[in-house]
Amino acid sequence: MILVIRPDATEAQIAHVIERVEELGFRPHVSRGEQRTIIGVIGDERKPQAETFGAVPGVEQVLHILKPFKLASREFQKADSVVRVGKVRVGGGHLAMVAGPCAVESFEGLDCIAGHVKKAGANILRGGAFKPRTSPYAFQGMGEEGLKILRDVGDKHDMPVVTEVMDPRQVSLVEKWADMFQVGARNMQNFDLLKEIGQARKPVLLKRGMSATVKDLLMSAEYVLAGGNPDVVLCERGVRSFEDSTRNMLDLSAVPNVKGQSHLPIIVDPSHATGRPDLIPAMARAAVAAGADGVHVEVHDCPEKALSDGPQALLPDQFVKLMQDVRKLASAVGAQVD
Amino acid sequence: MILVIRPDATEAQIAHVIERVEELGFRPHVSRGEQRTIIGVIGDERKPQAETFGAVPGVEQVLHILKPFKLASREFQKADSVVRVGKVRVGGGHLAMVAGPCAVESFEGLDCIAGHVKKAGANILRGGAFKPRTSPYAFQGMGEEGLKILRDVGDKHDMPVVTEVMDPRQVSLVEKWADMFQVGARNMQNFDLLKEIGQARKPVLLKRGMSATVKDLLMSAEYVLAGGNPDVVLCERGVRSFEDSTRNMLDLSAVPNVKGQSHLPIIVDPSHATGRPDLIPAMARAAVAAGADGVHVEVHDCPEKALSDGPQALLPDQFVKLMQDVRKLASAVGAQVD
Amino acid sequence: MILVIRPDATEAQIAHVIERVEELGFRPHVSRGEQRTIIGVIGDERKPQAETFGAVPGVEQVLHILKPFKLASREFQKADSVVRVGKVRVGGGHLAMVAGPCAVESFEGLDCIAGHVKKAGANILRGGAFKPRTSPYAFQGMGEEGLKILRDVGDKHDMPVVTEVMDPRQVSLVEKWADMFQVGARNMQNFDLLKEIGQARKPVLLKRGMSATVKDLLMSAEYVLAGGNPDVVLCERGVRSFEDSTRNMLDLSAVPNVKGQSHLPIIVDPSHATGRPDLIPAMARAAVAAGADGVHVEVHDCPEKALSDGPQALLPDQFVKLMQDVRKLASAVGAQVD
Amino acid sequence: MILVIRPDATEAQIAHVIERVEELGFRPHVSRGEQRTIIGVIGDERKPQAETFGAVPGVEQVLHILKPFKLASREFQKADSVVRVGKVRVGGGHLAMVAGPCAVESFEGLDCIAGHVKKAGANILRGGAFKPRTSPYAFQGMGEEGLKILRDVGDKHDMPVVTEVMDPRQVSLVEKWADMFQVGARNMQNFDLLKEIGQARKPVLLKRGMSATVKDLLMSAEYVLAGGNPDVVLCERGVRSFEDSTRNMLDLSAVPNVKGQSHLPIIVDPSHATGRPDLIPAMARAAVAAGADGVHVEVHDCPEKALSDGPQALLPDQFVKLMQDVRKLASAVGAQVD
Repeated sequence: MILVIRPDATEAQIAHVIERVEELGFRPHVSRGEQRTIIGVIGDERKPQAETFGAVPGVEQVLHILKPFKLASREFQKADSVVRVGKVRVGGGHLAMVAGPCAVESFEGLDCIAGHVKKAGANILRGGAFKPRTSPYAFQGMGEEGLKILRDVGDKHDMPVVTEVMDPRQVSLVEKWADMFQVGARNMQNFDLLKEIGQARKPVLLKRGMSATVKDLLMSAEYVLAGGNPDVVLCERGVRSFEDSTRNMLDLSAVPNVKGQSHLPIIVDPSHATGRPDLIPAMARAAVAAGADGVHVEVHDCPEKALSDGPQALLPDQFVKLMQDVRKLASAVGAQVD
Repeated sequence: MILVIRPDATEAQIAHVIERVEELGFRPHVSRGEQRTIIGVIGDERKPQAETFGAVPGVEQVLHILKPFKLASREFQKADSVVRVGKVRVGGGHLAMVAGPCAVESFEGLDCIAGHVKKAGANILRGGAFKPRTSPYAFQGMGEEGLKILRDVGDKHDMPVVTEVMDPRQVSLVEKWADMFQVGARNMQNFDLLKEIGQARKPVLLKRGMSATVKDLLMSAEYVLAGGNPDVVLCERGVRSFEDSTRNMLDLSAVPNVKGQSHLPIIVDPSHATGRPDLIPAMARAAVAAGADGVHVEVHDCPEKALSDGPQALLPDQFVKLMQDVRKLASAVGAQVD
Repeated sequence: MILVIRPDATEAQIAHVIERVEELGFRPHVSRGEQRTIIGVIGDERKPQAETFGAVPGVEQVLHILKPFKLASREFQKADSVVRVGKVRVGGGHLAMVAGPCAVESFEGLDCIAGHVKKAGANILRGGAFKPRTSPYAFQGMGEEGLKILRDVGDKHDMPVVTEVMDPRQVSLVEKWADMFQVGARNMQNFDLLKEIGQARKPVLLKRGMSATVKDLLMSAEYVLAGGNPDVVLCERGVRSFEDSTRNMLDLSAVPNVKGQSHLPIIVDPSHATGRPDLIPAMARAAVAAGADGVHVEVHDCPEKALSDGPQALLPDQFVKLMQDVRKLASAVGAQVD
Repeated sequence: MILVIRPDATEAQIAHVIERVEELGFRPHVSRGEQRTIIGVIGDERKPQAETFGAVPGVEQVLHILKPFKLASREFQKADSVVRVGKVRVGGGHLAMVAGPCAVESFEGLDCIAGHVKKAGANILRGGAFKPRTSPYAFQGMGEEGLKILRDVGDKHDMPVVTEVMDPRQVSLVEKWADMFQVGARNMQNFDLLKEIGQARKPVLLKRGMSATVKDLLMSAEYVLAGGNPDVVLCERGVRSFEDSTRNMLDLSAVPNVKGQSHLPIIVDPSHATGRPDLIPAMARAAVAAGADGVHVEVHDCPEKALSDGPQALLPDQFVKLMQDVRKLASAVGAQVD
C-alpha cells in the first residue's frame, strides 16, 4: 500500500502518519519526490486496519497494490479448478451447458423441456423454485414443491440440477434437493447467504451483480471459499448500462479477466445479459470462443405461456442449433462438452 | 399496455395475438397504421400474465403505460406520508437528520459521537451492528452486543436509533433493539428480507441499490408496503458510474423524481454517495434545497481509528457547520429540523 | 407514435392534442382504456415536427414505434453491404483484419510493423497521423508527414490504409492519402465532420462513442449515408462503465444487435475496448465468433517506446497467434480472411 | 508516478525498468516490500514519455500521483476565476443565470422569450444557431441568420449572448456575433475545436461530455487555457447512466469536486440533465445550494411549437418562480445574481 501525502501537509502530520503506520504493525518507507512525498506501507495490506489510512490527516490518496482476495487467486492456486456438479465436470476444458426454463411450473412442463435440452446436449438442468421478482405481485415460484419436481425431472433425465437460493433459511432445503446452488445477481453481496453457502457441501453458481466489478465478484467468491466450500463457479450475466436496447450489457471480457487472476471456472449467461433471443446464440458462441467454461441458457417450449421471463427463452429448436455451434467453436478452442 | 406488431407478421399471427389477449382476460384494441399495426391491451397490465405477451410470435415490442407499483404511488395516496421514528417525524416538511458512526465500536465511542451530533441538531442516531463488507476479512460488526449499545446510547441522548439488518433471521432481533430498520443498498432487492420487514411493526429506511432505477426502488418499497408495513423512508445514496473520483454518483434528481410519483419520504446520504468528506457538506445542502426529507451523514470523532469507512466520516466540528447550513437552507425551502 | 394521456387530463386538453396531431399532418387514432386514454399518431414519425408532442399539455408519455434511421436499416437494404477498402472487401463473410501502431512515428518504424502484420495475415494497415489526446501536452501526431509515410508503407506492402480524421478541414487532405477514413469514438457525434465525410468518395470506419447507444451509432452512420457516401463500416470499441479493471467495456452484443437491424458491416476493436494486451486475443476470438466482420488491433514491435498507447499494443508474435486463432474461428462460423 | 513490479519479474527485468526510468529523464526510487517491489519515478509525470512505462516488461501497474492538468488547477491559481461575459461577471459569488430557447427560430419568437427571461432576472441569453442533432433529418438550426437574430435580440434587451459552435470553421463567425462560445457535450473532446477556441478572444462555456469524468472535463478546459484563452466556464449537464426515467444523470457532486481542484467557475444545466420540466426547478435550487456559479435553463413560451427540445423547456412563468427560489437560496449560501 502506498500513501500519497498532500503537498501542503506539515512535517508534524507526516510524522503522525508514520507513527500510525508503525502503530498498526506495518513498516513505513518514505520517499520524497519533487512534488509529493509518498510513504510505502510494508506488510499485509489486507489487514482490516489498513483501511483507516485514508482518514489520517495529511494523506491525499491511498494506492493499493495487492489484490484483496486470496483463496480465489491464481497466486493461491495455479491450476484451473474443476468443479463437480453431480457427475459433470466444469472447468479445465470441460464446458457446463446449463439449460432449462426460468421457473419450474409443473412436472410435465419441465419434463418436456428437459427432454429437449438433454437430447440437444445440455449437461446440467436449471429451473427456479424461488424466484426473485422485481414486483411483489409477480409469480414468486413454486417453492419446495418446485424443488422436488426439479429433482425428479433431473433424475429421470440423468442430469444434475441447479436452482436459485435467495434466503439463508432456505440453504439446507435447497441443498437437500439440488446438486448446485445458484446465487442470483441481486444476491451477489448478500453476505449472510454467502456465509451460509460457505458451510454447505454442494457447489455454487455465483452470478455477477448488476453493478459489481470483477473484483467484487471475486470477493464474493472469497466469502464462500473462506467459509470452507471450495466449489464455486462464477457466472457473467451482464451489468447495467445506458444501452437501452438490451436488458443488460454482457461484459465478455470478464472471462479472460477472471481467468488471469483466479483459478475458478466462469460461465456466461447470455439469456439474462441480453434478454433477447435474437442475440443469445451469437453471445453463446462468443463466450465459448473467449474461453468461458460453459453457457447458461433459458429454454422453454412455449415461451408465450411461461410464467416468468418467457420472452427471453430460446425455443428447443433454437437451442439445438446453438449446441451445434457451441460444439464447433469448443473444438476450435480446445474445449469440450462432456 | 400496447403491443407493436412486426411489419412482416402474418394475418394468422395477428389473429393469434388477439386470441391470447382475450384468453388472458384483456380486451384488444387494434389500430392499423401506415407502417405498423398496434394492439392496445385494455385491462390491468400489472397482472402477472401480462409479462408473456413479448414472447408471442409476431410481437415486436411491448410498451407499458402504467406504473408497476400501486401502494407507493401518489395516485394511491395524494398527501405526503409522514413516518414516525420514535418521536421524530420524517416527511411533510419535517427533516430527518440521521447521524452517527458507520459501525458501533464501543459504548464510550458511540456515546461521545452521539453527544456531539445530538448537540449539533441531529434527531436520529445511526450505527451499524451488522456490517455488509465486501471482504470476508474485514470487520463484520459487533452483532447483538452492538445493538444493545446503540439502544443504550440512544436512550441516554433521547434519540431514536436506526441500524442495518441484512438477514431475514435478524429482523426480530433488530426490531427488539432499534427504532428503525435500515436496508442497505446491497440488499435493496433481497426480497425475502423485504417480506420479513413487511411483517414487522417498525419503520424502515430503504436505501437505493447501486444499480437500481428509481422505479426499482419504488418496487422494493412496494414489497414492504404490500406486506403490511406502511412506514417506508427511501434513501438516495448514489449509484455506480464511470466517474472514478467519487465512490458513487449521487443522483439528486431522484428526490423530485420520487416525490412526483410517490407519497413516501426520501432522504439523501451524501457520505456513501461521494465517499469524500470534502464533498459531503455541499451535497447535504443540495439535498435539502432539492426537497429531500432529510440527510444521513456519517460522523466520527476519530475517523483514522474507525473500524469501518473512517475516511468518509465527517468530524464533529464539520457536522456542526453542516447542520447550520442545512437549517438555513431548510428555512429557505419551507422545511424544518424538529 | 403513441401518445399516452395523463389520467387527470381534461377533455379540452385531449381535444387540443388531437388538433395538434392533425395540424402537423398526422391522423389520430383514439383509444380509451380503463386507466388511460392513448392516441395513436398515424403517419411518418420521423418528421421533425413529431418531436414536439411531448410538450403538449395533457401528454404524459410519447412512445416511438419506428426506428429513426432509414438508409442504414435492414428494411431499406436486405442484403449485407460489402464495403471495398482499396482491393479488400469488408462484410458479407469477408473479414477486415486491421492492424498497425496507434500512431505513425517514422517510416522505418511503420515499415517494420507493417511487414510483421502483413505476413501474419492482416489486410488493412492502420496508423494515426492526427491523434485525439486527452491532454494538450501529449504527442498530437505527425500530421501530413505521417499521412505520407502511411501511404508509402501501405503501397510498399500492398495494403490499403486507414487513418483518423478529426477536423472537417482535414477531410480532403486525408482523402488524398488514405484509403479509408476513421472517425474516432470522441467524434462519433461531430456532425459537421460526418457531413463532410458524407461528401467524400472514400469509405469510413465509424467508431462507436463511449456513451453512444447502438441506435446513436446507426444514426451517425445515417448522417454519412444521407450525405451520399454509402461506404460505412461500423466499429464497436467499448463504452464507459463502472468496471475499473478495463479501459472500457466491450459490448459484443452490439455485433448481432447491429446486424439484425442494419446491413452495414461491423468490426470490433478489442485494443481500445480493454486497454489490456492480456485480454485482446480472447476478445478478438469472441468477436469473430459473434459474427463481426473483422477485428482492429494495435500492434507495435516495441510498445515501451511507442509515443501513444504503447501499453495496449500487441507484440508481433502475439498478433501472429491471434491471426491463427481468428482463422480457425472464422472457418467455424463460415467467414474468411481474404 | 509509481511502478508496481510483477511478483514474478526477474532481476533482469527490474534492472531494465530502472534503466528506462533513467533513460527518460526520471530518477528511480526502489522499494522492496514483502510481496511486491515498487519503483517511485521522480520527476514530472506529465511528460509524454511517462505514458510508456505500462508497456515495459515486468511492470504490473502504473499509479499516477499528480493531476494531469496545470493551468486549470487550484495549485496554479488559488483564487476563484471570475469570467466576464459582456458586462456580466461569472464566478467568485456572481451567478450566471443563462436562459433562452434551445434554438433561435425567429426574431419575434426570441424577442418574446428574451423579454420574459430578462424580466425574471436572467443575465445571459442563450439560443442555438447551429444545432447538434442526433438525426440528420432533424432541424439543424438557422446558421448565420440565427446568430444575427441572437445578437439583435441580446442588444435590444441588454443581455450578452451565448451560442453553440460545433465546427472549427465557424469559430470566427460565432466570435463575431456572440459574447460567449458554447461547446456542447458531444464536442467536449473535439480537440481541434478546443484549439481554435483557445486562439479566440471570447469566453467559452464548456459542457461536460456524456461519458466524461471530471478529470476529462478539466483536461478539455486545459486545451483552451493552453491555447491562450483564460476565460473558461465549465458546465455540468448530466452524464449517461442506466436510469431510464431521466434523459441523463445530473452529477451535482461535480460542482464541489471541480471547485476543490480548479479555480474555474462551473454552472449547472438541469434542462439537458433531466429532460423533464418537473425536475428542473428542484435541480436548479440544488445547484445553487451546492455552490454552482450559475444555472443554465431552457425557456420557451410555447414548448409544443419549439423546433427543438420543446418538451424539456420551462414556460416563462415557471422560470419566474425558479428565479425567485434561486435568489432565496443564493442569499442563503452567500452568492448573488447581479
